[in-house]
Amino acid sequence: MKFVRVSLHIPFLSAVLYTFTLNFLSLAVQAAGIDASVPSFHAYTLSSVPAYFDSGSFVSSEQGDGFFPLSALGVSAPVVLSKQELQGVAIVADHLRADIGAVSGTAPEVVQGAIPDNAPYIVVVGTLEHSDLIQQLIASGKLQVDDLSGKWEASVTQVVEAPFSGVRQALVIVGSDKRGAIYGMFDLSRKIGVSPWYWWADVPVRHADNLYIKPGSYRMESPKVQYRGIFINDEAPALSGWVYEKFGEFNKDFYEKVYELILRLRGNYLWPAMWGRSLFDDDSQSDDLADVYGIVLGTSHHEPLMRAHVEWQRYGSGPWDYSKNAQVLSRFWREGVERMGAKESIVTIGMRGDGDEPMSEESNIALLEQIVADQRDIIADVTGEPAEKTPQMWALYKEVQDYYDKGMRVPDDVTLLLCDDNWGNIRKLPPVDAQARSGGYGIYYHFDYVGGPRNYKWINTVQISRVWEQMHLAYEHNVRKLWIVNVGDIKPMEYPISFFLDYAWNPDAIQAKDLPAYAERWAAEQFGETLAAPVAHMLTEYTRFNSRRKPEMLNAKTYALKEGREWNRVENDYKALQREAESVSAQLPSPDFADAYYQLISYPVMAGSNLNEMYAAVARNRFFAKRGMLEANAQADRVKTAFAKDADLSEAYHSMKQGKWHHMMAQTHIGYINWQEPEAQVCPEVAYVDESGTSADNVATCVEQPVTLPITEIQTGVFIEQNGFITMEAPHFSRKIEAKGQRWLVVPDLGRTGSAVTITPVTVASQLPGEDSSRLQYRVYLNEPGTVTVNVYVSPTLDYEDRGGLRYAVSFDGETPQVVNIHDESFGNWDQWVGENIIKPRSVHHLSDSGVHTLNIWSVDPGVVFQKIVIETGEPTDTYLGPQESPISQ
Amino acid sequence: MKFVRVSLHIPFLSAVLYTFTLNFLSLAVQAAGIDASVPSFHAYTLSSVPAYFDSGSFVSSEQGDGFFPLSALGVSAPVVLSKQELQGVAIVADHLRADIGAVSGTAPEVVQGAIPDNAPYIVVVGTLEHSDLIQQLIASGKLQVDDLSGKWEASVTQVVEAPFSGVRQALVIVGSDKRGAIYGMFDLSRKIGVSPWYWWADVPVRHADNLYIKPGSYRMESPKVQYRGIFINDEAPALSGWVYEKFGEFNKDFYEKVYELILRLRGNYLWPAMWGRSLFDDDSQSDDLADVYGIVLGTSHHEPLMRAHVEWQRYGSGPWDYSKNAQVLSRFWREGVERMGAKESIVTIGMRGDGDEPMSEESNIALLEQIVADQRDIIADVTGEPAEKTPQMWALYKEVQDYYDKGMRVPDDVTLLLCDDNWGNIRKLPPVDAQARSGGYGIYYHFDYVGGPRNYKWINTVQISRVWEQMHLAYEHNVRKLWIVNVGDIKPMEYPISFFLDYAWNPDAIQAKDLPAYAERWAAEQFGETLAAPVAHMLTEYTRFNSRRKPEMLNAKTYALKEGREWNRVENDYKALQREAESVSAQLPSPDFADAYYQLISYPVMAGSNLNEMYAAVARNRFFAKRGMLEANAQADRVKTAFAKDADLSEAYHSMKQGKWHHMMAQTHIGYINWQEPEAQVCPEVAYVDESGTSADNVATCVEQPVTLPITEIQTGVFIEQNGFITMEAPHFSRKIEAKGQRWLVVPDLGRTGSAVTITPVTVASQLPGEDSSRLQYRVYLNEPGTVTVNVYVSPTLDYEDRGGLRYAVSFDGETPQVVNIHDESFGNWDQWVGENIIKPRSVHHLSDSGVHTLNIWSVDPGVVFQKIVIETGEPTDTYLGPQESPISQ
Repeated sequence: MKFVRVSLHIPFLSAVLYTFTLNFLSLAVQAAGIDASVPSFHAYTLSSVPAYFDSGSFVSSEQGDGFFPLSALGVSAPVVLSKQELQGVAIVADHLRADIGAVSGTAPEVVQGAIPDNAPYIVVVGTLEHSDLIQQLIASGKLQVDDLSGKWEASVTQVVEAPFSGVRQALVIVGSDKRGAIYGMFDLSRKIGVSPWYWWADVPVRHADNLYIKPGSYRMESPKVQYRGIFINDEAPALSGWVYEKFGEFNKDFYEKVYELILRLRGNYLWPAMWGRSLFDDDSQSDDLADVYGIVLGTSHHEPLMRAHVEWQRYGSGPWDYSKNAQVLSRFWREGVERMGAKESIVTIGMRGDGDEPMSEESNIALLEQIVADQRDIIADVTGEPAEKTPQMWALYKEVQDYYDKGMRVPDDVTLLLCDDNWGNIRKLPPVDAQARSGGYGIYYHFDYVGGPRNYKWINTVQISRVWEQMHLAYEHNVRKLWIVNVGDIKPMEYPISFFLDYAWNPDAIQAKDLPAYAERWAAEQFGETLAAPVAHMLTEYTRFNSRRKPEMLNAKTYALKEGREWNRVENDYKALQREAESVSAQLPSPDFADAYYQLISYPVMAGSNLNEMYAAVARNRFFAKRGMLEANAQADRVKTAFAKDADLSEAYHSMKQGKWHHMMAQTHIGYINWQEPEAQVCPEVAYVDESGTSADNVATCVEQPVTLPITEIQTGVFIEQNGFITMEAPHFSRKIEAKGQRWLVVPDLGRTGSAVTITPVTVASQLPGEDSSRLQYRVYLNEPGTVTVNVYVSPTLDYEDRGGLRYAVSFDGETPQVVNIHDESFGNWDQWVGENIIKPRSVHHLSDSGVHTLNIWSVDPGVVFQKIVIETGEPTDTYLGPQESPISQ
Repeated sequence: MKFVRVSLHIPFLSAVLYTFTLNFLSLAVQAAGIDASVPSFHAYTLSSVPAYFDSGSFVSSEQGDGFFPLSALGVSAPVVLSKQELQGVAIVADHLRADIGAVSGTAPEVVQGAIPDNAPYIVVVGTLEHSDLIQQLIASGKLQVDDLSGKWEASVTQVVEAPFSGVRQALVIVGSDKRGAIYGMFDLSRKIGVSPWYWWADVPVRHADNLYIKPGSYRMESPKVQYRGIFINDEAPALSGWVYEKFGEFNKDFYEKVYELILRLRGNYLWPAMWGRSLFDDDSQSDDLADVYGIVLGTSHHEPLMRAHVEWQRYGSGPWDYSKNAQVLSRFWREGVERMGAKESIVTIGMRGDGDEPMSEESNIALLEQIVADQRDIIADVTGEPAEKTPQMWALYKEVQDYYDKGMRVPDDVTLLLCDDNWGNIRKLPPVDAQARSGGYGIYYHFDYVGGPRNYKWINTVQISRVWEQMHLAYEHNVRKLWIVNVGDIKPMEYPISFFLDYAWNPDAIQAKDLPAYAERWAAEQFGETLAAPVAHMLTEYTRFNSRRKPEMLNAKTYALKEGREWNRVENDYKALQREAESVSAQLPSPDFADAYYQLISYPVMAGSNLNEMYAAVARNRFFAKRGMLEANAQADRVKTAFAKDADLSEAYHSMKQGKWHHMMAQTHIGYINWQEPEAQVCPEVAYVDESGTSADNVATCVEQPVTLPITEIQTGVFIEQNGFITMEAPHFSRKIEAKGQRWLVVPDLGRTGSAVTITPVTVASQLPGEDSSRLQYRVYLNEPGTVTVNVYVSPTLDYEDRGGLRYAVSFDGETPQVVNIHDESFGNWDQWVGENIIKPRSVHHLSDSGVHTLNIWSVDPGVVFQKIVIETGEPTDTYLGPQESPISQ
């Protein structure tokens, strides 16, 4: 299956949208280390040199003096390469061609080996070493980029006047090396409006009729961390199911998408998927293509000498134990180095047990040192050069770090790969005063993990602030050779992947205080400036909430139900976020943004909110069931509903764009009983209580059909005493009883804190409480028996029919109702009532039992508008609005 | 000064904007009583009759079969009236002309007395009685509106095929009477995209290139309440200052704006401004113009026989006492009736004391009955008809209701005007079984008031839900003759005025459950569908907050500072609303909406938020000052800042649109000491504490310059113990001390609940606490002396440098710091730390005094990331996230 990139054209929004393409990701630009001051090697007068951050970009939608017309009036400047140019540069030039076409509507020609006729404006791309065109420009003094020579991944983008005969202007993108040229081209793509995530997260390409490049010379310095990469890992069932459906296998077509993504994000390094897979062996073209693109391949920490773990299963024989099977292992490894050839790679050395397990107890440091020595002999032998000419790394992962701690060392040229604890906390850093090593240090970090105390694979739980803080530690401890992060299935880690690679490019450019701005810049690049602030807020908050506890570890006991109303708080946090997500969804610049928004925002927010709501309902179900209360049943139903909704949300993810992301959210995440994931989602157990209220043992799970409850009017649960109060908003009754011809009416938003309830028709006759009288019932839970005061907050309605006041009545359970006149002067006077916009009449009751009681509020006279009820069990409250509603209100 | 209506043309947004003009205010449409089912009198087959609510409107931007082209391809259909048509209808036809022009860019011609040549499509407007064109259509059987005859304010809007020779289609708007025709025209204006508030609140007119009317017959039934009006009152300093500046005086130019507004809102009745003013006497053309427009004039409850109160001062002589000065009073009143002539009016009868005060003690019922009898004689005598032919009303306002209660009655044809208590609570309603009166009943209601317990004039404090509930009571008690509401300066009562008049039109059409939808429809009409939900939410919430306590009655003691953290709650409520207002402001469809948004949303939200913040700061200032704490000073500064901001916000209101609304927010609202407003705003008194911390009596007011405080690093106040805890987010320290070369770094958003703090550079050496060590200080207030536990929540950072753990230290005040190792196994194990994403180390301290203490958190090892501090004074907490932050955190 092939995917086709579609160019968007949204005419009436283009003016709006275009503006934000010019402002995007200035922090990433900063991270690129581009020299914003006057370049030292330009050929122009000072006044013609624009500040790099003018509008955050060197791209303009308007013509200006000396501007280079990249695409104007329907004509896009051809992209020209030398005949000798590297193949990877030519391939990315074709991506640039397509990007310019997608943005402007007119894709330029790509011409290799000649300057096209009749082209007054051309784009010249190439490497310092391979481009004779660029060499000519340097020789003629028109391009001064001498000091680029020998730099790692640096580039200059410059407008050159009269570069060649018949050419008025050229936009030259010159790389110090292959990736320098590639980053220069993809940097231009981002600046004209193509997000690195245009395909992987369906971020719409922004349209612009005209694209001009401001004159000047723009320099991208070398990155501060040399190798910056991702590790595709733990890739079943989500990524693997998707790859098999869309690509047939983990072949070069799939990996090309990965290579392109990494390069657009200015990474350079990949550990490929290895759960029963080998990039090298599954499709023999994949590693060649990586090398063409300039992707440095490695194998994970436990896969030595460029051989995937699964290859040992396919081709190995005997035990994975060097003390017993050295000959076979040596041959196996030698084939890995032979296959690598001259392709740019970092070779893992050392050894762990089979399948990323610790080696057997017999293994010891001496053996491991021998292994390393033998492996380096193989490298030297196959490459025909000293081993130190080939980049190598030794991972101090888990127990291997113990060997290191016990004194084992490897040669100085081998990069020491330090690791986190798989949970984002770095285990070890070199002392700041440690002697420098030529191989330097690296970090292997995790956004995703399979292992104890529990897998976390489903969704993004990563706070970029913690990534910053930990990688800042690493960087300050001189860990600057290699940063790699386990990203699971790639999706849904879009945001932290961007951050990890941006930060790796130049940690000095992103200070802690810049993190909020980073979030906004990233949000703006995907969804536009207008929505940057709320989208950034949601990214920050949903990752905060997920980081409180990995969703796989959540259960009904995670948060407290009563103390501090913690479940309510967590639920409310998420619901507020969900409302924000819904609100922003309605404000997207166009419907084309909907898919990206669902992937990056709505799904994680809604699924997280729903999951927390589910476990909160489990907690409430258990609370009620333990007490034999019928309210348990409504909570059980909520659990089932939420469990089903979880599947619906994933299904919506899977079905968008005709199933483009089918399988991607297939990771099970409900029903864990140990560290390893359940095979299928398992709904939490809930209990139903029967009408007698005494039995709580008919435990059911969500697989069952919902039970039809005998009671239908339950609207809320039981309100729990806390701090000496039970407070309820009046519409939150648990049951209403209506006299013939009467109806309790909720008046939305009436009152000081919620909505209000009144009896209708408002013209009914007054009636003292009787068996058939209208009343509202509230279920409340008292901690102690004793005397309580029931304060009923009512609107300051007057006695408009001269009845001598307006009355209601109050009773607990079966006691005789007490009739209360709201205008009794013991409840204040008119000045007070209208000033406070409330009357707070009260009555006193004695309750001989603790536990659940039913409070009845009876209608006596119409016109009484009930807002809120506050039962005081201890000291009276004298706050203006009264206490907030008690726990377990739904 | 004249205002010019500007037609908006926003090309790239027009497609978006147009859609919501087609959906606006369906509830208002419902309230109009338009028969949505098949009309009984149409001439078409069923299939050609559109459902009225198709797209919520009979207007379409697209052509369709049989659609009438109101404005298409740059041509607008001429508006045609008969030569005999009423002048008011012709004037409003000219408004319709301008509205169509503003929307479409092409204003039609208005032609009176002839059908224009070469006009295949025409709009015919008129009254049943005066339009010979409409009579022709009825005679020819092309228009069947016979049963409209004799109805009150009803209308039909209908597309008629081949109405006249040479005319293909006509859109006919026919009124049963003058206001029927006018309401029909203004209904069309609203449906094409002109808000009734286009001028009075600067709501942008929506542009649409093409306007078509779907074929069919649309009927607006008579309103359910006969007279529906507003009372301009208490109009100084705001409205009066504005009128004098913009119109010179309360003349016909000003009143024409008022008449137009009332009619666009489908009201029909006005009590004019009367604070030293007389509509009749100030500009003799004003009452004539009212009659032309069809506005029914009245005078307020205490201004008998169509004479303004001020006219007695101008022309009266002797006492305002009928027992002493009957002859002069009679002559005065007779002149009022003579001036009224045939102009449609409702005549106030009865009498109060001079200047709306109760009459002298000598007054009695017998005298008042005599007054009424004599007044009716004057009416009969001047009009030459029996008194009952002239509509009259007797207001049972304040003490007059006592006379009624004591048995005084007036003739059956006089409307009894019942009243609220000036605070929105209706005082009296007729019994539902009362015998019907031919004069019926009315209600005089208040959105604004001058009197006790306090004026409320500044801002909108009205919950429409309470208006609904009280007016529903009235309607159900058969109060259906007349509803009038005191609206103060008109602005800023836009929203409740709309609601009052919409509800009066047809109370049966707006049920309680429809209130949230009403808010959204109103919001959509002003700001578009996209923002309807958040705007409605803000309208509902800011009126709720203002209704909790009129702003004029707010003070530092209104809400509790400690108990329930009520001030924090109220402040947070408002701040959340303010954030929403800012967020929505950034999403307005175009900058043209900014002025309307500021008037209707931003100003009330921001000013309300600021005012509450100010009083909260006063409360905190007093709390601290009483205890001699320096934190008082920062709060005092906040009060001054907020006081100044209040003026700035009003100034922004006054300066928008080149000062169009200058004076409108000039009402003083801070500094009340009794019911009457202060002449100027007076800042609340605050106290500054000097550095000795012992003196709290240097009270200052905001008039002074802010004092420069000796302490500059105070970031927050003192955290107060509550429920056995003091909890602080780590970045909320009150002071930071930094060792040489070290900096405390706040990492934004890091952690489970807020941000985090860590020491930098992260490579500094470990250091046990010493005089110059880096530490954070928090000021805390303990209720009791005793033993406390300090829990320090830190990120689960590992011992990456093998120091044997990571340490910090804790001390209160000057005690020896206790060093704590976060990795001590008594604080849990790794599984727990990463699962919970936190480590909660703790230390125990003894404090021998209650009151304020300084908690020191010392840096020992770098890499410790502080998130939150929880001091337990009683039982330990075991919630997952820990208690929320303690009161007085800023």
